[in-house]
Amino acid sequence: MSDTYSDLYSDNIKQIKASAIREICKLIARPEIISLAGGWPDPHTFPVTEANKIINDLLDHNWKYVLQYSTSEGLPEFRFYLSQWVKTHEQIDVSPDNILLTAGSTQGMDLAGKTLLNPDDVVCVGLPTYFVGAFTIYGAREEGIPVDCDGMQIDILAEKLQSLKKQNRLVKLVYIQPNFQNPTGATLTIERRKRLLQLADEFNFLIVEDNPYGDLLYEGERLPSLKSLDQNQRVIYLRSFSKVFSPGIRLAWVAAEKQIIRKMVIAKQFIDACSNNLSQYIMFEYFKRGFLESQIKKNITYYKSKRDFMLTTLDKYVPGEIHWNRPRGGFVSFVTLPHHMDAEEILYKAVEQNVAFVAGRPFFIDNSGQNTMRLSFAQSTEPEIDTAIKILGGLLQTEIDRNK
Amino acid sequence: MSDTYSDLYSDNIKQIKASAIREICKLIARPEIISLAGGWPDPHTFPVTEANKIINDLLDHNWKYVLQYSTSEGLPEFRFYLSQWVKTHEQIDVSPDNILLTAGSTQGMDLAGKTLLNPDDVVCVGLPTYFVGAFTIYGAREEGIPVDCDGMQIDILAEKLQSLKKQNRLVKLVYIQPNFQNPTGATLTIERRKRLLQLADEFNFLIVEDNPYGDLLYEGERLPSLKSLDQNQRVIYLRSFSKVFSPGIRLAWVAAEKQIIRKMVIAKQFIDACSNNLSQYIMFEYFKRGFLESQIKKNITYYKSKRDFMLTTLDKYVPGEIHWNRPRGGFVSFVTLPHHMDAEEILYKAVEQNVAFVAGRPFFIDNSGQNTMRLSFAQSTEPEIDTAIKILGGLLQTEIDRNK
Repeated sequence: MSDTYSDLYSDNIKQIKASAIREICKLIARPEIISLAGGWPDPHTFPVTEANKIINDLLDHNWKYVLQYSTSEGLPEFRFYLSQWVKTHEQIDVSPDNILLTAGSTQGMDLAGKTLLNPDDVVCVGLPTYFVGAFTIYGAREEGIPVDCDGMQIDILAEKLQSLKKQNRLVKLVYIQPNFQNPTGATLTIERRKRLLQLADEFNFLIVEDNPYGDLLYEGERLPSLKSLDQNQRVIYLRSFSKVFSPGIRLAWVAAEKQIIRKMVIAKQFIDACSNNLSQYIMFEYFKRGFLESQIKKNITYYKSKRDFMLTTLDKYVPGEIHWNRPRGGFVSFVTLPHHMDAEEILYKAVEQNVAFVAGRPFFIDNSGQNTMRLSFAQSTEPEIDTAIKILGGLLQTEIDRNK
Repeated sequence: MSDTYSDLYSDNIKQIKASAIREICKLIARPEIISLAGGWPDPHTFPVTEANKIINDLLDHNWKYVLQYSTSEGLPEFRFYLSQWVKTHEQIDVSPDNILLTAGSTQGMDLAGKTLLNPDDVVCVGLPTYFVGAFTIYGAREEGIPVDCDGMQIDILAEKLQSLKKQNRLVKLVYIQPNFQNPTGATLTIERRKRLLQLADEFNFLIVEDNPYGDLLYEGERLPSLKSLDQNQRVIYLRSFSKVFSPGIRLAWVAAEKQIIRKMVIAKQFIDACSNNLSQYIMFEYFKRGFLESQIKKNITYYKSKRDFMLTTLDKYVPGEIHWNRPRGGFVSFVTLPHHMDAEEILYKAVEQNVAFVAGRPFFIDNSGQNTMRLSFAQSTEPEIDTAIKILGGLLQTEIDRNK
């Protein structure tokens, strides 16, 4: 297909590829497909009745405001409320000036990139990481730091920081999901959390802590967020409502140092003027009416049972040569195949049998990980998970047998 | 105030100032102020009852979808519908692949910047223009082209293009609001529209045609959009629902050449993943139920009457040395004071008497326009407009007398 105005494109957009994951989601949108691909929440968890009641009340009483523009920072009362809430619930000491409402945490990442990155600045990300390219779209270089079952390997990060410093390369950001990381499901240990913050001070970088799944903890102790341990305000903390309320309303929030928030607000004026005001009012009411706590509890029970079921079916159907983890929360388990196997080949065969997942490679900035796959248990029913994993297990067994 | 991490900011954000207009909106948020400042719609026009009914129906029947993520392009059925609608209503021949749903037209502008601009590229904008800095945030240079009562002076643009070409400077975009431009209220003549399109071909640039107010035409003939005259797909057409439905739902759409849309979709994956899905479903239903046409008619009657009233009060209270235009549509009239007068000084004095407007200078990229002001009639009632213009007229008379 010829591209008429390609000579006019920006350099940054030319070198960016579409998100492989969102592209896959489009391709497998056929209804007959059982999808373990999308990291989307199960619509059955959406609090539809409560949302409907809240919207009715808002449009009856607050219609002048909810359908009007918001300030770029977001609804002042809600920012105040969140600053109190996060103090009580997450031991994070912030004021409303530290808080910005965003159109999903994706916008929080974009605002971090826009306010902080110059071409050739370095951003360290997991290997694998969620959302390859999020920072290269600003011309920055992403450096991959290996992730193991305890999260990003902070000792390797320290070595990398040292060697980049010697090369005079400026590391501005480390991007990390400490809880049930997408795609590995790994949780960063408390020791690594503390060490990462020390490194931020030592090497003068900021941390983008993305915590979309944090509320969905199925077992073990809830670890303190980096932000709650953050003595020097080096953490830009991204909190989303997408996984516990609804992603369709596109609402999330950022907590960060005041001046950084101020710069993000200015940048936001240029990217969408303000967040959806109806969504802000809905979510604010949802908090105030005390629905969120019980919603989170319900979701934990619901998704934990799916996680347990998928882990059981993996044990049942998938050959012993293949390994996967037991995520303590979130939506996904990460599967590692023997090194000679190619998950993308398996994916094509699986789709022929109406089963989909995400091959791991798109999460690796160095294009490795060809023998990995991400399996989400969030959206499918137990019978669907059983069918899908059985088919997948069969395909994997065939592939192993073929290579013997 | 010290700025802890200012050494880490991006060069682009360092050189950007907050939107003066949005900042003013914050300062004058006191309830006792009569504001002729914001270009916001009057909440009394919001179709609250219809919106409430639609949302109830959606959450009763489509809850699985409306609260879930959308594709980055936007709801496929809605894109199809819009492609048909714009063919019928605006004689623009597009397919769904030419259409992208965005979080307000601000996001359309941002996506144009992101996909097209490299540092030092040139964007020509009106002098004055809406939203100074929208493209410099991408490191581009904005060049101002004077606007008169017939809109941007395209003959001056032609000269500017010629001289920039001689300097080997690359003009990528012209940004323009052809209908009732913000802040001047001026409408671009049909001759200038045609000439602008010729220049785009001759000098190989693209046009961002921003049409937020186009539906609100109070007198005279509706002129064809640049997009409808666009033989070579050089126009990126921005259409908003903010002025005829609600800005709070943050929804707008872009029509452009397919490959440009494709690049914008990729960029959108990185800035907010997708547009608010609830908003998309609401707006789609609003169209399908035929509410939009009657809503537009109602709004025209409503705002035209306010415009007429403000023009009458201007005649009544404002001294003859001062000039303003009679906008054919939209929300604002533009006032020009004698050259020695400073609208910002008048603004401070007016705010002391609880009247606000926007001084014109922030709309001029060369920092000129100190003797201009933008008066919006959209949000105030007739008695409020009467009071405000009377106070303003008094202040202007005093100022004129003082300088005699």
